[in-house]
Amino acid sequence: MDQKTPIAPPCSVPEDPKRQAILAAAFEVFVTYGFRRSSMEDIARAANMSRPALYLHFRNKEDMFRSLVEGYYDGASAAMAEALAGQGTPEEVLLAAFRAKDTEAMSTLLASPHGAELLDPRATSSGDLIEAGEARLRAHLADWLRAGQGAGRFAEGIVEDPDALAGAMLAALKGLKVPGTPMETYRSGQEQLARLFGRALTPG
Amino acid sequence: MDQKTPIAPPCSVPEDPKRQAILAAAFEVFVTYGFRRSSMEDIARAANMSRPALYLHFRNKEDMFRSLVEGYYDGASAAMAEALAGQGTPEEVLLAAFRAKDTEAMSTLLASPHGAELLDPRATSSGDLIEAGEARLRAHLADWLRAGQGAGRFAEGIVEDPDALAGAMLAALKGLKVPGTPMETYRSGQEQLARLFGRALTPG
Repeated sequence: MDQKTPIAPPCSVPEDPKRQAILAAAFEVFVTYGFRRSSMEDIARAANMSRPALYLHFRNKEDMFRSLVEGYYDGASAAMAEALAGQGTPEEVLLAAFRAKDTEAMSTLLASPHGAELLDPRATSSGDLIEAGEARLRAHLADWLRAGQGAGRFAEGIVEDPDALAGAMLAALKGLKVPGTPMETYRSGQEQLARLFGRALTPG
Repeated sequence: MDQKTPIAPPCSVPEDPKRQAILAAAFEVFVTYGFRRSSMEDIARAANMSRPALYLHFRNKEDMFRSLVEGYYDGASAAMAEALAGQGTPEEVLLAAFRAKDTEAMSTLLASPHGAELLDPRATSSGDLIEAGEARLRAHLADWLRAGQGAGRFAEGIVEDPDALAGAMLAALKGLKVPGTPMETYRSGQEQLARLFGRALTPG
């Protein structure tokens, strides 16, 4: 090959730009008004198109929200896997992996007055997608823990149950993600946890 | 003094047994029906007394909820301080301190279908008390980290900012406390975090 191979998109179907533009508009509307108070009318206006045209792409606002959630987890999962494949001390690799989950969209959600509603799995009937997405992130982290323990890169006996350990780490990270928390406090907490977890894994 | 000094109660006013009985009844009612759907009538019935008699002790259900929150933090704070004054490896002391926060009431809340509402600071207008209570717990943990670092009991450079570190640890613990989580999963997560934090603090 004398030409650079194009980078493959995260999913096999080429993304429809119109669809992407609608989702970007829907995200803006949800963040501004909250999920319950947003209407298809609001989203059509933000996307600069008619309501009937909007319905050619999405059944309803739940459908859009679900697409946004799926898109978030596709991106976060790929970025996290890439970070975990990188070089560095356990602390460095973990910090990179934790940061990989923080897309710009998540920062916007945290700063939104509607963050609590938008991050509440019950409020938007996308609990199943969130659960599946979190399981993908957990699996990446568990794989890294398992491989590192197998290769003798970690302290003796610290990784007894890679799945449970990965679950506890991600739950801990989520504990930092309280709506209204200043981004700076959140990032500092994330660094503290990466340091604690990384040091704990590092052989004495 | 030829007699044993009586153990001082956590607050200076002796606890009124009638008041305590009402609070126990109110807690049962909140856990069963949720906060919004509970009425003074429900609580009076559970406490086996008349509604007018109930009003001699508490202004309204918010007042009862606030008393329950205060009672929880008085107990958790005292138990946590005692655990942190104990002997053991950092891992052992942290696990004891983390467990000290888990009163039986908290287990009941986690198992309640109304746990999400009851643990939501905005749902019950006791956000100020929760914030003050969490700050007390954080201060105990920060004091322990500061003292241990000062005495050279911890690994070099791990405790840079005791307050921020204590905050991150408690936020991480809170991340495990998702309503609906089986108690067993919660306890396992707590042990994992105590182990990770404890090992990170232990000099190499």
